[in-house]
Amino acid sequence: MPPVGPRSGDAIFANIERVNAELFTLTYGAIVRQLLTDLEEVEEVNKQLDQMGYNIGIRLIDEFLAKSSVSRCVDFKETAEVIAKVGFKMFLGVTASVTNWDADGTCCSIVLEDNPLVDFVELPDTYQGLYYCNILSGVIRGALEMVSMKTEVTWLRDMLRGDDAYELQVKLLKQVPEEYPYKDDE
Amino acid sequence: MPPVGPRSGDAIFANIERVNAELFTLTYGAIVRQLLTDLEEVEEVNKQLDQMGYNIGIRLIDEFLAKSSVSRCVDFKETAEVIAKVGFKMFLGVTASVTNWDADGTCCSIVLEDNPLVDFVELPDTYQGLYYCNILSGVIRGALEMVSMKTEVTWLRDMLRGDDAYELQVKLLKQVPEEYPYKDDE
Repeated sequence: MPPVGPRSGDAIFANIERVNAELFTLTYGAIVRQLLTDLEEVEEVNKQLDQMGYNIGIRLIDEFLAKSSVSRCVDFKETAEVIAKVGFKMFLGVTASVTNWDADGTCCSIVLEDNPLVDFVELPDTYQGLYYCNILSGVIRGALEMVSMKTEVTWLRDMLRGDDAYELQVKLLKQVPEEYPYKDDE
Repeated sequence: MPPVGPRSGDAIFANIERVNAELFTLTYGAIVRQLLTDLEEVEEVNKQLDQMGYNIGIRLIDEFLAKSSVSRCVDFKETAEVIAKVGFKMFLGVTASVTNWDADGTCCSIVLEDNPLVDFVELPDTYQGLYYCNILSGVIRGALEMVSMKTEVTWLRDMLRGDDAYELQVKLLKQVPEEYPYKDDE
């Protein structure tokens, strides 16, 4: 029987091509170090990581839609749940939860229980302003833009900065008219 | 029964933490694009990718030794086989073969049958001098240096440059005296 409806993140993750998480972690660390060397200003590195994530997100959404069998979400609430429960599992192999909804259902937090990007990472004092995982906020922003949702994604908590969890706030700014989903920024 | 001797790359790969291969591919692509923008000269990008790979390799060797149960290889021939059969499988989920040995067993080629780094990649004419996967040569060089082998690793064939395979030549320059395996280049 063909699969009916969306598949769980676990089931998808078990059946897709993967690479070693430590290789990914170290490769990501190499990017961040490179940016810190080249750009010097921590603020610029945050911006660049977010932009790189955005460029990844606008492509990764295709893989997500193709492999997850997720169809159009009825609202932003369902979208956030799908990102946390299916998206994070499918791409990073971790689960996340959605909390802190505002009254009108356009702003929430995604809290990461585990974060493979930060294994072995410690921030020296000089880089305290760095949002080390800022690529993730960019990925979410880029992916959502491709399904007509313009969002603002910001870190509320970051364990590398001494907080007790990783918490990303996702705020829906507007639903934009559907566009052709392929966008080439080159 | 506890495992005896080295485990196969397949068995290790099935039991380690992994992330989605497409996410890795796109993240790697974002690095290369970033370097091309920041450094402009293709030769500089090749050098930087190799250096990033080296920094990754000197750390990844620990994970490799810990997870693979591979003990000291008797010679460079065995080392090359282990890289191809266990290393590539364990980290990238692909297999590679070893060919083109020279007469004294200090130089060989590792040929990749599949290469997840290059999915969706096409090099524009202006970047024909780019060794897109140069991070891999750096990883091998770095990892081998941590087990006392100083090597030179160069691309002989590259499908992004129109060749029919990915072929890395690994040349043993010298066996260096054993050193404390942790090296911090910061």
